[in-house]
Amino acid sequence: MHTTCPIPISDYPTVTLAHGGGGALTHQLIDKMFRAAFTNPLLDAGHDGAVFQVPEERMALTTDSYVVCPLFFPGGDIGSLAVNGTVNDLAMCGAKPLYLTLGMILEEGLPMETLWRVVQSIQYAAAEADVRIVTGDTKVVDRGKGDGVYLNTAGVGVLATEQDIGPSCIEPEDVILLSGDIGRHGIAIMAVREGLEFESEIQSDCAPVVEPVLKLLKEGIAIHSLRDLTRGGLASALVEHARAAGARLQVEEAAIPVREDVRGACEILGLDPMYVANEGRFMVVVPGDQSERALQVMRACAVSAESVRIGTVESRERPVVHLKSRIGSLRIVDMLSGEQLPRIC
Amino acid sequence: MHTTCPIPISDYPTVTLAHGGGGALTHQLIDKMFRAAFTNPLLDAGHDGAVFQVPEERMALTTDSYVVCPLFFPGGDIGSLAVNGTVNDLAMCGAKPLYLTLGMILEEGLPMETLWRVVQSIQYAAAEADVRIVTGDTKVVDRGKGDGVYLNTAGVGVLATEQDIGPSCIEPEDVILLSGDIGRHGIAIMAVREGLEFESEIQSDCAPVVEPVLKLLKEGIAIHSLRDLTRGGLASALVEHARAAGARLQVEEAAIPVREDVRGACEILGLDPMYVANEGRFMVVVPGDQSERALQVMRACAVSAESVRIGTVESRERPVVHLKSRIGSLRIVDMLSGEQLPRIC
Repeated sequence: MHTTCPIPISDYPTVTLAHGGGGALTHQLIDKMFRAAFTNPLLDAGHDGAVFQVPEERMALTTDSYVVCPLFFPGGDIGSLAVNGTVNDLAMCGAKPLYLTLGMILEEGLPMETLWRVVQSIQYAAAEADVRIVTGDTKVVDRGKGDGVYLNTAGVGVLATEQDIGPSCIEPEDVILLSGDIGRHGIAIMAVREGLEFESEIQSDCAPVVEPVLKLLKEGIAIHSLRDLTRGGLASALVEHARAAGARLQVEEAAIPVREDVRGACEILGLDPMYVANEGRFMVVVPGDQSERALQVMRACAVSAESVRIGTVESRERPVVHLKSRIGSLRIVDMLSGEQLPRIC
Repeated sequence: MHTTCPIPISDYPTVTLAHGGGGALTHQLIDKMFRAAFTNPLLDAGHDGAVFQVPEERMALTTDSYVVCPLFFPGGDIGSLAVNGTVNDLAMCGAKPLYLTLGMILEEGLPMETLWRVVQSIQYAAAEADVRIVTGDTKVVDRGKGDGVYLNTAGVGVLATEQDIGPSCIEPEDVILLSGDIGRHGIAIMAVREGLEFESEIQSDCAPVVEPVLKLLKEGIAIHSLRDLTRGGLASALVEHARAAGARLQVEEAAIPVREDVRGACEILGLDPMYVANEGRFMVVVPGDQSERALQVMRACAVSAESVRIGTVESRERPVVHLKSRIGSLRIVDMLSGEQLPRIC
């Protein structure tokens, strides 16, 4: 994967302001590095935007900026994050991702080799997720006005279902499924930042979750809601659902998988894994009578092989999330008021 | 337009890292400020992405990040720029802009009132350009890792023509039209940065150019190419055309409108107006026999009322741009190799 940087490092060891000025250096960077890495007919047209044909159907559009620090972490980097994060947002709309845009804000002085690593990671992640980067933009800001690389991706996808999917669609007796263990992405980042070492390295769960979502839809599961568990973690996703639907949700603490090393790191760092960000995990709310079949479908995909049932929608009387602890007591889960983990994505 | 900031300044005078953490403060900022300002059914759905229906046709997708410094300048600000820049990129594809995404990277410590001014400007510009902000994302980076506000917008539009439009479509005997005077955006920014004062303030030309483009298409003008004259200015756009089509272009220096105050400022700053960025100007290449009618159509729109014919496509023998000076000599116009104006957009 790591081929030679296509910009001669001897000439340009770092990104300069001129690489963002719209002149010859900008064109060299775009043509030799970005176009070469992401080549596809839409991008190759080289216009101000990408032009494509869509069949008459519903589409989804989403965007996220990525400011993760550090740029590289166990299990991923800002490039794979920028692809998977946006691809997953489209999946959460019940859409098959098609095209991504890529906006880069580079800091003057960024080593050219670092940029090349990020570009290769984007290329690899886009191929894995079966999406094409069809248009982009590059800006360079002065030294000290950025932090190496910030990325933005916007994504376009085609809806794979005619049903409405969203937090307000959940109903009493629905079952809440979780696609795997939680907390790894946030802890992987924090471990690097804090210099923590564990027996085995904790890797981010960063991955595309398109496959299980499309399979659920293909199998005719009447998905009521989908949410990826990024900033704010599982707890915030549950609270958002309770609020949007005016519903009481109850989840079982013992049913929520958290790896032992992640739980240990959370204790050291004073974090609650319920609030820690994930980048390859989602919750899905389905009718109770379809939940077993939905679990089977999810478990058949590698990215969601450890899927579990974590709770139910109890009623639509008042918006609250109850967590039933291991000893049987109920506690209310609320949204985090402050900042737990800055620049996690 | 300037109503009270919807976030109580007494509680939160500035943006904090917690505003980007995905918890209660993030939700407050999104709900009270962003959703309230940009309200529309697609955005109000409050999902991870916006879902919409499109008729079966060709679509355009584009993106730009905006890192302009200073955030506010005569004739515009980063907010209006982020709307008009992306809307104009869609217009350059021959598309009618429909939807925008909005990604914000805020620096910790940004005054909340400043953010509110930017948001209002985006709201106003989107209404002017008749586009809707349908989904967005907010990140906060630590103090000293940004510069107040960076924006990214991606845009989706529906093609308003079946013809292919692009630099490679230009042909000998085509005529090159320019939609008005050049150099004002770049000079407006530089004047603020350098503290220059002129008799009359030089205002940016920042504006949407959708109207003349759609009217040209509606009138049946066989547009061969369109290009907005942003970073790198008119010169870079011409060179890109010459290279893409392997064509010799010839433009008349005397035909290119540059305001006297802009010309004077360029002399003081050592800049060539041909390379200075514009944000409401475009060049269009049309068949020679349609150029007069095209000019009439363009001049009927306020944003392109001063449209002029500046040159022709001479041949497709070799890629070169010739500028015929006022005294009749020819000089070759090349792409700028270095950085003329950093962070102009």
